[in-house]
Amino acid sequence: MDLQGRFITFEGGEGAGKTTQILRLQNRLKSLGHHVVVTREPGGSPGAEKIRHMLLSGDAKDLKPRGEAMLFAAARADHIDHTIEPALSRGDWVLCDRFADSTRVYQGEAGVDPAFLDLLEIAAVAGMMPDLTILVDIPASVGLARVSKRAETTAAGGPDRFEIDDLAVHERRRSMFLELALQHPYRFVVINGEQDLDATEANIWHAVVRHFSELGSKQAKSEMIGAPDHGQSA
Amino acid sequence: MDLQGRFITFEGGEGAGKTTQILRLQNRLKSLGHHVVVTREPGGSPGAEKIRHMLLSGDAKDLKPRGEAMLFAAARADHIDHTIEPALSRGDWVLCDRFADSTRVYQGEAGVDPAFLDLLEIAAVAGMMPDLTILVDIPASVGLARVSKRAETTAAGGPDRFEIDDLAVHERRRSMFLELALQHPYRFVVINGEQDLDATEANIWHAVVRHFSELGSKQAKSEMIGAPDHGQSA
Repeated sequence: MDLQGRFITFEGGEGAGKTTQILRLQNRLKSLGHHVVVTREPGGSPGAEKIRHMLLSGDAKDLKPRGEAMLFAAARADHIDHTIEPALSRGDWVLCDRFADSTRVYQGEAGVDPAFLDLLEIAAVAGMMPDLTILVDIPASVGLARVSKRAETTAAGGPDRFEIDDLAVHERRRSMFLELALQHPYRFVVINGEQDLDATEANIWHAVVRHFSELGSKQAKSEMIGAPDHGQSA
Repeated sequence: MDLQGRFITFEGGEGAGKTTQILRLQNRLKSLGHHVVVTREPGGSPGAEKIRHMLLSGDAKDLKPRGEAMLFAAARADHIDHTIEPALSRGDWVLCDRFADSTRVYQGEAGVDPAFLDLLEIAAVAGMMPDLTILVDIPASVGLARVSKRAETTAAGGPDRFEIDDLAVHERRRSMFLELALQHPYRFVVINGEQDLDATEANIWHAVVRHFSELGSKQAKSEMIGAPDHGQSA
């Protein structure tokens, strides 16, 4: 990517802990003085949030698989043009909860032709692929148990329409994410999401520092100011 | 197209009279014993109609041009998979009010990169291009006057968000439609939409019969049962 900023996406199944880890990575980067934009898909721009509502509320349940995949791509194109590209042009770090790999996995698992998904990715993403994709990997049963517990203990409401799919579907998605990571080893890093939050955070930070050499010189300073990484070997 | 049916699209600016002429062509074809599906874009399937509402009501006004163009493409993909392809597989005639050429013109005029529109067309339309496209051509000022009169005399409500663009925009769209017709002479026929309804209908029927040779033998019968074509030379 020719832009000055750095673009990191988080991928993984439901309940993997992506949202929590994004906030922790944001804090790490901010403590080093970086500007950080945290965003998510579907959504991340005013127009794309409207499409998100349509996609997740079930309003789009009438759509055939190709139409649904294009709706996700439309939200992505808008998110890039409105939010991601401007942030990267400013030199910010962008941390995004789900991106093009989720389309590959969710719509691919639903039976959408991979060649069609290729075209959508070229059209929507163009050159705006992430510098680094962090796949937070957990067994589907563990992730779903977390989602179910979260629904009980918070006012977040019931599960969305992707969360209610059955366990076998979630397991297939997990395998497809891992397969994408194997296909793109220079962009992906796979993080074990079953560890406790601190350990997972430390492993993610280790991967980020390894990937972006400019952070290396600042890392010592970060450790001095007490960012936790004692769980790294847990 | 390998499918048994026949696919005709109608294109043109606001107030060109497409809707009226589609109904008249439908009657002509039905009188010859054909099954005819009349549909429209954006929309034409339950999922695409929801996207249509978003696009035309102004809910999509927050979208950047690429996102909006992809939303139209998403509606089109769904419309094809849900409505057009099944009808053509059954051997029906499909008459569609606007299709891919409208995306070329409306989003192209709005400044969306033609290479991006190419990709969207390949992704959404794939092999499902019309056998014949009827461009009903009128000066933009005439079309807009008709739209304005229609709004006064019917309960159709006010103009939609594309109708309210200014005259110069409508004129550019007209030129772009005519340019597309020049680029695709075997698929397009340009019909003068300034004539009276009967004359326009007769000219369209003449073009359809010329394009689809299987109608030729049935045309004499059609004239005997009194379908009007006295306006053909008007």
